[in-house]
Amino acid sequence: MRVFLTTVLMTCMLGNLSLAQSPNTPLLGFTARGTADQRALESRFDSFLRAENLRDWMKRLSAKPHHLGSAYGKQNAEFIAAQFKSWGFDTKIEEFEVLFPTPKTRIVQMTAPEKFSLKLNEPPVAGDASSTQQKEQLPTYNAFSIDGDVSGPLVYVNYGTPADYEELERRGISVRGKIVISRYGGSWRGIKPKVAAENGAVGCLIYSDPRNDGYYQGDVYPKGAHRNENGVQRGSVMDMPLYPGDPLTKGIGAVKNAKRIDRKNAETLTKIPVLPISYSDALPLLRNLDGAVVPDAWRGALPVTYHFGGTTPTVRMKLEFNWDIKKIYNVIARIKGAELPDQWIIRGNHHDAWVNGADDPISGLVAEMEEARAIGELLRSGWKPRRTIIYAAWDAEEQGLIGSTEWAETHADELRQKAAVYINTDSNGRGFLGMGGSHTLEKFINGVGRDIPDPQTGVSVWERSKARQMVSGTESQRSELASRSDLRIGALGSGSDYTPFLQHLGIASLNLGFGGEDGGGSYHSIYDSFEHYMRFSDPGFSYGIALAKVCGYSVLRLANAETLPFDFENFTDTVGVYTNEVVRLADSMREDARSSNLLITSGMWRAAQDPTDRLATPKLKSEVPNLNFEPLRNAVAKLKLSTSEFQKASAGRQLSQADRRSLDELLYKSERLMTRSEGLPRRDWFRHQIYAPGFYTGYGVKTLPGIREALEQRDWTEAQQQILVVSRTLEGLAAEIDRAARFF
Amino acid sequence: MRVFLTTVLMTCMLGNLSLAQSPNTPLLGFTARGTADQRALESRFDSFLRAENLRDWMKRLSAKPHHLGSAYGKQNAEFIAAQFKSWGFDTKIEEFEVLFPTPKTRIVQMTAPEKFSLKLNEPPVAGDASSTQQKEQLPTYNAFSIDGDVSGPLVYVNYGTPADYEELERRGISVRGKIVISRYGGSWRGIKPKVAAENGAVGCLIYSDPRNDGYYQGDVYPKGAHRNENGVQRGSVMDMPLYPGDPLTKGIGAVKNAKRIDRKNAETLTKIPVLPISYSDALPLLRNLDGAVVPDAWRGALPVTYHFGGTTPTVRMKLEFNWDIKKIYNVIARIKGAELPDQWIIRGNHHDAWVNGADDPISGLVAEMEEARAIGELLRSGWKPRRTIIYAAWDAEEQGLIGSTEWAETHADELRQKAAVYINTDSNGRGFLGMGGSHTLEKFINGVGRDIPDPQTGVSVWERSKARQMVSGTESQRSELASRSDLRIGALGSGSDYTPFLQHLGIASLNLGFGGEDGGGSYHSIYDSFEHYMRFSDPGFSYGIALAKVCGYSVLRLANAETLPFDFENFTDTVGVYTNEVVRLADSMREDARSSNLLITSGMWRAAQDPTDRLATPKLKSEVPNLNFEPLRNAVAKLKLSTSEFQKASAGRQLSQADRRSLDELLYKSERLMTRSEGLPRRDWFRHQIYAPGFYTGYGVKTLPGIREALEQRDWTEAQQQILVVSRTLEGLAAEIDRAARFF
Repeated sequence: MRVFLTTVLMTCMLGNLSLAQSPNTPLLGFTARGTADQRALESRFDSFLRAENLRDWMKRLSAKPHHLGSAYGKQNAEFIAAQFKSWGFDTKIEEFEVLFPTPKTRIVQMTAPEKFSLKLNEPPVAGDASSTQQKEQLPTYNAFSIDGDVSGPLVYVNYGTPADYEELERRGISVRGKIVISRYGGSWRGIKPKVAAENGAVGCLIYSDPRNDGYYQGDVYPKGAHRNENGVQRGSVMDMPLYPGDPLTKGIGAVKNAKRIDRKNAETLTKIPVLPISYSDALPLLRNLDGAVVPDAWRGALPVTYHFGGTTPTVRMKLEFNWDIKKIYNVIARIKGAELPDQWIIRGNHHDAWVNGADDPISGLVAEMEEARAIGELLRSGWKPRRTIIYAAWDAEEQGLIGSTEWAETHADELRQKAAVYINTDSNGRGFLGMGGSHTLEKFINGVGRDIPDPQTGVSVWERSKARQMVSGTESQRSELASRSDLRIGALGSGSDYTPFLQHLGIASLNLGFGGEDGGGSYHSIYDSFEHYMRFSDPGFSYGIALAKVCGYSVLRLANAETLPFDFENFTDTVGVYTNEVVRLADSMREDARSSNLLITSGMWRAAQDPTDRLATPKLKSEVPNLNFEPLRNAVAKLKLSTSEFQKASAGRQLSQADRRSLDELLYKSERLMTRSEGLPRRDWFRHQIYAPGFYTGYGVKTLPGIREALEQRDWTEAQQQILVVSRTLEGLAAEIDRAARFF
Repeated sequence: MRVFLTTVLMTCMLGNLSLAQSPNTPLLGFTARGTADQRALESRFDSFLRAENLRDWMKRLSAKPHHLGSAYGKQNAEFIAAQFKSWGFDTKIEEFEVLFPTPKTRIVQMTAPEKFSLKLNEPPVAGDASSTQQKEQLPTYNAFSIDGDVSGPLVYVNYGTPADYEELERRGISVRGKIVISRYGGSWRGIKPKVAAENGAVGCLIYSDPRNDGYYQGDVYPKGAHRNENGVQRGSVMDMPLYPGDPLTKGIGAVKNAKRIDRKNAETLTKIPVLPISYSDALPLLRNLDGAVVPDAWRGALPVTYHFGGTTPTVRMKLEFNWDIKKIYNVIARIKGAELPDQWIIRGNHHDAWVNGADDPISGLVAEMEEARAIGELLRSGWKPRRTIIYAAWDAEEQGLIGSTEWAETHADELRQKAAVYINTDSNGRGFLGMGGSHTLEKFINGVGRDIPDPQTGVSVWERSKARQMVSGTESQRSELASRSDLRIGALGSGSDYTPFLQHLGIASLNLGFGGEDGGGSYHSIYDSFEHYMRFSDPGFSYGIALAKVCGYSVLRLANAETLPFDFENFTDTVGVYTNEVVRLADSMREDARSSNLLITSGMWRAAQDPTDRLATPKLKSEVPNLNFEPLRNAVAKLKLSTSEFQKASAGRQLSQADRRSLDELLYKSERLMTRSEGLPRRDWFRHQIYAPGFYTGYGVKTLPGIREALEQRDWTEAQQQILVVSRTLEGLAAEIDRAARFF
C-alpha cells in the first residue's frame, strides 16, 4: 500500500519562501547547547549516506516476487535482519502465523450475449526481466475475497461508493442478485465489495480504468509509466475499517498457539466473491452493457459509451482459494537508550510486496535501511541515543497491515507504557514531501522539513511543499498559508502500518514520503519492478536519501531531545478546525435537506427532469435537528486555555532530570488520552477519537470520526452522544495539560 | 447554426412553481379589454396548429441536400414562398449574389512517421436513406478557408483559444511554420484558425473529439444520436466577429451590381487553410504526436495518450476552392398592418442547411411556417394585425448569416425607421425553452412563456425552465431566482440571423428555441437527417408546436399591442449586473496579477514545478490600474432614476392614439440608442454597445463589449475610453426615457 501524497499535500501550510530556519534557533525539545550538538550529529549522519546502497538493496530485494509466505520474502527478511545486525542493532525476527488465502480457481466468463473467458493474466513486457518471473508471481486476485460460484447480469457501479448506489436507486436499477463491475479509485478497494454486498449483489469485479491510471494519464508501460491494457491491481479487500491484521485473531497477537476464531466467523472477510481485472478484460463486458448512459462523472476513458447495464451482459465468476495459515517474518532491530531506555522511538516500513514491489514498499524500505546504517556508523563512533530506538521491517502489510498489527497487539501493554512515537514510511519517489500524522508532532516535523534540502531545487523540502500548496491553492488557502508559521500536516486514515500504533494503541505517529513527480500505474502489478522504478521514479535515489534524512533527523532528534518535542498549540488549533468542520457539516446538511426537500415538494425537481429518463423522485431527507455542539466548543475552549497556560508556564524554564522524564511520559502518553477503550461505535478496535479510517471510505481519513460518521449516516442521536464522548475526551486531555503545566 | 440552449438556460430566473399567470391579468401593452380580445385570438390561433404539417414539411424540405447554391435549396425557397403566398402573405423572393467557395481539392496526408492519406468522407449508414445521397452532398470542409498547400509538423492545441496558446508558450512549444490540430468545442470554430494564424501556424485541422459529441456522450449513429467515427462538422470559418455576410460587400447589400471588393482584400477570409475531419481520420495523427503529455483539461476521449506534438508527425494539407459567386434566395412574406403599417414585427428562420439539415434549420423553420399558416387562417377569418408582420426564411445562414445580413444591409434605412422587433429561431428540439435577446423585451417574453403549456409536463414552459434552473443552480442562484419575478434571458452573441438586426441596426431582438433533451452529434453532418430527427429529437413535433405558440403569441401580441410591450426596468437591472461584472473583472484581474506575480517573484512558482517539465516561468502580468468606473455607475444610476420616473408617470394612464404611435416609435427606437455609428473598436460593423459576439469567442457573447474586451486584452487606456463611451450611450438612453415620461 502507499501514502496518497497528493491528498496529504492538499490539506496543508504557511509563510515566505525566503524564511529559512536559522541554524542557531534552538530545536524543539533542545537547549541552545543541545541544539549545537544535535546539528553536529546530523552533519555526521549526513556524511554516511550513500545513494548507491539504496540502489543495490532495491535491486536485491525486488529481484524476485516476495509476497507473504514466499521463499524470497523469507530470504529478504533474513537479509534485512543480517544487515541490521551488522550495523550494531540488537536484531531478531518475530514470527506470526496468519490466515492467507491464495487462488485455487479463478474463472470469469461472459455468458451472454456472447461467450468468452477473461484472460486474468499479466504477460511479461519487453525490457522488463522482472515481469518474466511468471512462476513465482501471485496470480491477480483480491485477498480475503470469499469462495463462490455466482452468475448474473452485470451492472456498472462507477466507484461503488454509497453515493453511487443512491444514483442507481434513483434510476430504478437494482444490483440484487447481480454481479457489479466497479472501477478502481474513488474509495479504497475493500469498500467496493462491502457496499455491493450491502446492496444485494452476489459478485464484484474491479477493473483499472485507463482514465484513472492508464493511457488517459500518460503513456503506458513499457513505453511510459502508466498501467497498460493487461495491468491488474492486486490488493486486500479485508474489511479493514472494522479491524486490520489477521482476521482470526482480532485484538491479540497471532502467535503460534493463539486462540483463533473459526474462519466462517471472521467479520473482515468479504461477503461476496471479488476479483480485480485489467481493462482489456473489462472492455468486452463494458461494451455489452445495456440500459441508460451513465452520468458524466461515472465515465472512464475506454472507447465505449458507458451504460449502467442490469440485463446484459450476463457473467459467471467462480473463485476458490487455498485458506492456508502462513508464517510471516517481522524484522525488529533495537538500540537501547543510554538514559531513558523505557522511552521508545519506533521506525517502520514493510518489506513484503504483492509481486516484486520495487516501489511498494522497497523504495521506502531502502531509505529506512540506509538511515539505520548511518545510525550504526554513529554508534560505531561512540555516540549513544538517550532513548531506545527500534527499527522494524514489517511483513504482510499488503494483506491488511498484518505484520505490524500482530506485533502491536502482541506487545500492546509494553507499547502503551513505553512507545513515544511511531514513524512510518512506505513507497517513495521523486517530488514533494508529504507529511501526515499526529498534530502534537506537527510543529516538530515542520522543523525537520525546514532543515532538509530538496534534491532538485535550492530550497528546503518544506519550502518546496509550501510553494506547491501556494501555487495550487485558492486565494483563501494562500492567505491561510501565509498567516500560519507551520504547514498543516494531513490527518492519518489508513493504508499503511501506522494504523495499529496510532488508532489502536494511541501512539503519536507520523507517516512520511516523497512523491507527486513519479506518477504511474504499476501499483500492485507485476510491472512494479526495479526496471520500472529506475526509468520513472527516483533513479538517482536522491529522494531516497532525502527521505532517509527526514526520518533519520526525526529519529535522532526524538531519541536525543532534552524534552520530547510534543506541542499542543498546533494540535489544539487543528481540533478547533475539525470542530468547525463538523458544525458546518450539520448546518449544511440541514440547509441541504430543507432546500432539496423544497425542490421535491414544490414539483420543481420533477419538472426539471427529462420524462423519458423515468427517474424516481428522490426520497425526502430527514430534517437535521439543531444538535448541541456547546459541550464540544467548551472543551476546545478549555483545551486552548490549558495549552496557552502550559506554554506560558514552560517558556524558558528548565526542569530537573527526574521531572523531565516524568514530563516526557506525560507528553507522549497524551496521545493515549485521545483514545477510549470502548472504541468507536460498531468498531471497538479503532480507539482514537480524533482520527480514523472512514467506515465507507477505507483509507480516507475521518477526523472526529464518532461525530462525523454519525452525521453522515444521519443518526442524530448517536451524533449527539458522540459530541459528548469527544468533549469528555478533550476535557481529559486538557486536565492532563494542566498537570504538565504544574511541573514548572 | 444553432442556439446554444444550455448556455442560455444557465444564465437566467425567478419565483414559485405554483404561481401561474392569471388569465385576467392584463398583458403587457394591452388594456384589460384588449387582453381579453387578444387571449381569444390566441385560442383561435392554437386551434389551427397541426403537428403533422411540421412533419410533412420537414420530410419534404430535408429530403435532399439544400445548401447555398444547390438546386434543391432553390426549390425549397420556391416551395416556402408558395406556401406563404397561399396563406395570404404578400410574398417575394429576394435574391443576392454572394461569394461561396466549394472544394476543388482536399488532400490531407500524414507524411511521417508513416505515410497515409485521410479519408475526408462521411459514408452512408444503415437505416438512413438521406445519408446515401453522396452526389448531392457538399464535401466535408470549412467555408472561407483560403487555398493553400502547406506541410509541417503537427501540434495539438486543444480548443485553439488564446489561453491554449499561452499554455503552449509556457511549455516552450511554438506553432510557427507548423500545422495545428484542434478539437471542436470551447470556442466557435472560426476562432481556431484565426488564433492559429496569429500564432504563426500555416494550417489548421479541426476534428470532432468523441469526448465532446461522440461516444463519450452517448451511443453513436445509427445506434444512438451521437457523432460516429466518420461524422464531420462542416461550418463557416469566416471571421464573423469582424463582420458577417458576404465578405465582398461589407455593410452594403450584395445585390447584382453591388460594389464588390477584391477577394484578396476581404478581411473575413481565413489567413491559413483549414479543414474539419472526423475522429477516425484524426486518430492516427493524434496517436503519433510526440512531446509531453497535455494537461488534463486538454484530453479527449480517444483511446490514446494525448501529447502536444511539435516534431512528429508531419502533415501535408492541400486545399483548393472554386471561388464562385452564387445566387441566394430569401423568402420575404408580409401582412400589412391595418393601423400602424410602418411599425414592423419581423420573424425569421433560415432555410439553407449544410446537407439535409432536418434539425438545423428545418426543425425551426417548420414551426415558423405552421405559425404563419395559423396567422393566415386568422386573416382568412377577417382579423388584421395593427402593425405590419414580416415572415422571413433566410438563405445562406450557414456560410455566415449571409441571407439575413445582405437583406438587413440592403434595407437598412427603412429597417432603422420601421423595424420594432426581430424574432429569430433556428434548430428546435425536445426540452426546455431557451430565451435570449434584448432585455427591454425580457418582461414581455417571460409573460409569453408563462402562457404556453409544456408538452411533456403539466406546467408552463416558463415554469419548466425555472424548475431546471432551480434544480441545477447553486444556493445563491436559487435565491436570486426566488427573489425576481422574471427569469433572466440570455444576452445574444452570434450564431444565428438576429446578428444583423440586433448588433448592426439596433433592432430589439429575441432568439427562441427548445432543447436540452435532444442531445446528439449530427450537427453539420450528413447524419442531420429526417431519419435521425424522427428517432432522437422531437418525433411527435410537440415542441415544434410549442415553439410555434411561443413565437406566434409573441408576433400576435407585438403586432396587436395598444402600446409596444417594451420595458426598461429589466433592462436597467441587467445593465446594472453587467456593470458590476466589469468592475469585478477589473478588481479580480488586479488581485490575480498581484497574487500571481508574487508567486513568481518569490520563487514559489519555480519551486512548485517539476524540473523535468522544463516549464518557462510565466511572464509577469501588467499591473491593473484603478480605472474610473464612476461615469458608468452614475449613468446606470441615472438610467434607474429615469426608468422609475417613467414607470410612475405611465402607470394606469391612457394616451391618445397619436401619442401612442409616437411613444411606440420612441420605445422601439430606444434600442438604436444602444448603438453608435462608429461601432466597436476595430470592428465598426458591430455597433451595439451592450451585446456583441466575442472577438476571441465567436458565438459567445460579450456584454458591455467595448469595456470588457479592452480589460481582457489588458488595454487600460482603451478600457477607460470605453467606460466613457458606454456611459454616454446610457445617458442618451436615459434622456430618451425622460422624454417618454413626458408623454403622460
